[in-house]
Amino acid sequence: MASQVRRQVFLGTFIHSRSRTELEYLHDSAVCVDEHGVIVKVERGGCGGSGSGSGSGSGDTTSSSRLLQSLGWSEGEVDVVACREGEFFFPGFIDTHVHASQYPNVGIFGKTTLLDWLDKYTFPLEASLSDLGKARRVYTACVRRTLRHGTTTAAYYATVDVAATNLLADLCLSLGQRALVGRVCMDSEATCPSYYRDESAAESLERTRQTIEHVRAIDPGFELVGPVLTPRFAPSCTGEAMRGLAEMQREMDLPVQTHISENRGEVALVERLFRGSRSYADVYDAHGLLTGRTVLAHAVHLSEEEAALVRDRGSKVAHCPCSNSSLTSGTARVRWLWGRGIDVGLGTDMSGGYSPSVLEAARQAALVSRHVAMNGDGEGEAETEAEAESHKLTVEEVLYLATRGGAVVLGMEDRVGGFEVGKQWDAQLVGFGRPVRDQDGDGQQEEDEDEDEEDEGNVDVFGWEDWEERMAKWLYVGDDRNTKKVWVRGRLVHARRGRW
Amino acid sequence: MASQVRRQVFLGTFIHSRSRTELEYLHDSAVCVDEHGVIVKVERGGCGGSGSGSGSGSGDTTSSSRLLQSLGWSEGEVDVVACREGEFFFPGFIDTHVHASQYPNVGIFGKTTLLDWLDKYTFPLEASLSDLGKARRVYTACVRRTLRHGTTTAAYYATVDVAATNLLADLCLSLGQRALVGRVCMDSEATCPSYYRDESAAESLERTRQTIEHVRAIDPGFELVGPVLTPRFAPSCTGEAMRGLAEMQREMDLPVQTHISENRGEVALVERLFRGSRSYADVYDAHGLLTGRTVLAHAVHLSEEEAALVRDRGSKVAHCPCSNSSLTSGTARVRWLWGRGIDVGLGTDMSGGYSPSVLEAARQAALVSRHVAMNGDGEGEAETEAEAESHKLTVEEVLYLATRGGAVVLGMEDRVGGFEVGKQWDAQLVGFGRPVRDQDGDGQQEEDEDEDEEDEGNVDVFGWEDWEERMAKWLYVGDDRNTKKVWVRGRLVHARRGRW
Repeated sequence: MASQVRRQVFLGTFIHSRSRTELEYLHDSAVCVDEHGVIVKVERGGCGGSGSGSGSGSGDTTSSSRLLQSLGWSEGEVDVVACREGEFFFPGFIDTHVHASQYPNVGIFGKTTLLDWLDKYTFPLEASLSDLGKARRVYTACVRRTLRHGTTTAAYYATVDVAATNLLADLCLSLGQRALVGRVCMDSEATCPSYYRDESAAESLERTRQTIEHVRAIDPGFELVGPVLTPRFAPSCTGEAMRGLAEMQREMDLPVQTHISENRGEVALVERLFRGSRSYADVYDAHGLLTGRTVLAHAVHLSEEEAALVRDRGSKVAHCPCSNSSLTSGTARVRWLWGRGIDVGLGTDMSGGYSPSVLEAARQAALVSRHVAMNGDGEGEAETEAEAESHKLTVEEVLYLATRGGAVVLGMEDRVGGFEVGKQWDAQLVGFGRPVRDQDGDGQQEEDEDEDEEDEGNVDVFGWEDWEERMAKWLYVGDDRNTKKVWVRGRLVHARRGRW
Repeated sequence: MASQVRRQVFLGTFIHSRSRTELEYLHDSAVCVDEHGVIVKVERGGCGGSGSGSGSGSGDTTSSSRLLQSLGWSEGEVDVVACREGEFFFPGFIDTHVHASQYPNVGIFGKTTLLDWLDKYTFPLEASLSDLGKARRVYTACVRRTLRHGTTTAAYYATVDVAATNLLADLCLSLGQRALVGRVCMDSEATCPSYYRDESAAESLERTRQTIEHVRAIDPGFELVGPVLTPRFAPSCTGEAMRGLAEMQREMDLPVQTHISENRGEVALVERLFRGSRSYADVYDAHGLLTGRTVLAHAVHLSEEEAALVRDRGSKVAHCPCSNSSLTSGTARVRWLWGRGIDVGLGTDMSGGYSPSVLEAARQAALVSRHVAMNGDGEGEAETEAEAESHKLTVEEVLYLATRGGAVVLGMEDRVGGFEVGKQWDAQLVGFGRPVRDQDGDGQQEEDEDEDEEDEGNVDVFGWEDWEERMAKWLYVGDDRNTKKVWVRGRLVHARRGRW
């Protein structure tokens, strides 16, 4: 199934995370991508091109010839893609928690919190997607929309329905988005609505196997699309279903995704439903679901004891700041989780979260970290000002969460998240348009001239900003208009009008 | 100076705030605007047009003929502007607190808080705008950008510089944005940087008079652009300057804008600088600056006593949620302020706030209200769950803040903020593009077809949403791409490409 692309040489500025705290800026550089979409060479500096200010868009032919020679590639078989001045390549975003099935409800949550939100908005919509025409419409819109925002990898929740879940996997493959696709398991008669649940644990497991087999049929090596075991969350699952999924996990070494400790009402519900368990995390652990391949969404109200357990098991956390603020769930503490040795990525969590954009999730992660700084880490002890300030996340840190952090959370850190030889070319070309011009007179005429130009979005660059400041502007003011092109495994999967 | 426009009839759906808690939806309606940009007739319902699903864009000729007759207008002298299906007219947004001079710094604040942010980022940039070429470039970009986002009225802080402040007023007038323009007064040797301040209280007052006279010369009735007295904030002003500005306020009945109680460090600084004052609010009151025309930005940490004083004086509050979260200032309590009888509007507060968009400010106001719900109102007493939940603001409430609320704060509630006879036509045409289509096959072909279409933004409408849900989607997922056209006092001041 590994579809081939033409060999490609990318020229210009490449920016990615060197570490959690630092971005690396590679100017005048080149990245060579082979016919399998794999990076085979990274030439750091000395490649001319836009980074040095030529802005030609055609690259530096001498250096690209030399590169081709060194790889034994001939010019005719290679596409050269060069940044324009001010543009840069950035790793594709990784959305570690998103409900494709809830996409039509983005922004619609009223004043609800988690449990009434599920009943009022979410379950009815999810159930309705057993209509495959509707599912196709919703899932196509969701995958296309997230690709436009530079999401090259998404960990999707679909619905209970097998056929609709399989359709989502088909669409990810055909539209070219790397994805984990999970059929939602929810079989508890006590808590799930009668119109939307698996009839039994056995059925839950059998239907899950059907979706895994479907994904295996369309992408045998799980190279672009893979299955993910998806117990919705402890309250909606029987112990039998959770144990069965854990067995399946061990048998096939599959990733697992679920929710944990999103909302205080939910935590109390888990306590009531699973009497005798020491904690929410302990419920999953007791059923064998806290594995090194488990992605736990939210983790807002984890105790120290739970954090230690999660760390010991090697499970990861999907931080969903838009959702947590919207549904009044709480403020997850990224610095606190990191400090306890837990890896963290970002999730849009549509439609608990209102935005399809991982860039928006990163922005809100920065803001939520400031709310943690203002209101404490919930540990009950007064913090010093320095301790409080330490919760704040930097531009560099939230962009790490959006890329490499997400890759680690989904167990894909060897394949995506940065620009190194051996990784796949999952990337976006980012740009801001021309710097704001000098103005003569009242500025009216220039406005008319602008009419024929591409809408380059809201980032106004004046020309005096350094690269760190440009990245800050992109994070806080940027949107999908700044994502000019998107590639997954070397394949161009989105380009803004006029940029093919 | 009241420039005339052609008479206009607007047809379709009109949505505005009926009250703080309720939006009014006028479908198949008409609003007639005279040559002075004033609404002279509102025909509620029965006008055909897009609200009834015709979507023709040409309006209903019979009903518009009848309307014209009733006004004694002839067809040749009237422009008819009709919504397309799904589009609606909404009052222009009102930004009650924005520093035009800081616009180039949006998104750039690192991990600073207010006082070090001023020194590190803000004062150097503001000071540099005494270069009028630079000021023209920055102010033109700021006014154009905010118009694109539907901001029809802005209360601007410029800089200390007279010529640059006057230039900002000129640009607002020529680009057509309703504005209050304030020269920043800051004359305290103890706290202001030596490179950026008024040399004395007398100079501060004299230079302020110069800018007022300039605005009076270009717009004698302050019909579109007016001056606003702008003591930066108590720490940067001498008592003499504040008293002088208060006298000027009484003499000319001018509006006043300043900052209050944004950040705890600032509050402590005011306490040190003005020993003997009972509170931050009391400092302004003692100097005569707490008037019925005073706009106080932030008001995050007000005490009960201060709130009572502010209410008694009739001063208003500009709530700046983006800024307060970004600079770790705190979470202002809108419900609490309302409960104490204080009127509130929204401010983008660029560049403490990262976004030029009042829609984004409204969105963040909703989110910040949820953080208040999660962390308490700072009164020190434990709240019940119902009390905590009560802090949350609805879609309707934050859109009220963005329009009518802002009009009240700026003392313009008789002129703008809603669609009533006698008000001026400050409005935006909002639309979301065509509903998401049914999909055949793998969706690839449709993607190609989309290439020639306008970029309609991120709001995907599926067709089953009611109007309340559409408004929620606009609030949470919308951006300037949904603001198709913008009018101020009847004049078209912005239109997206393809929509003239």
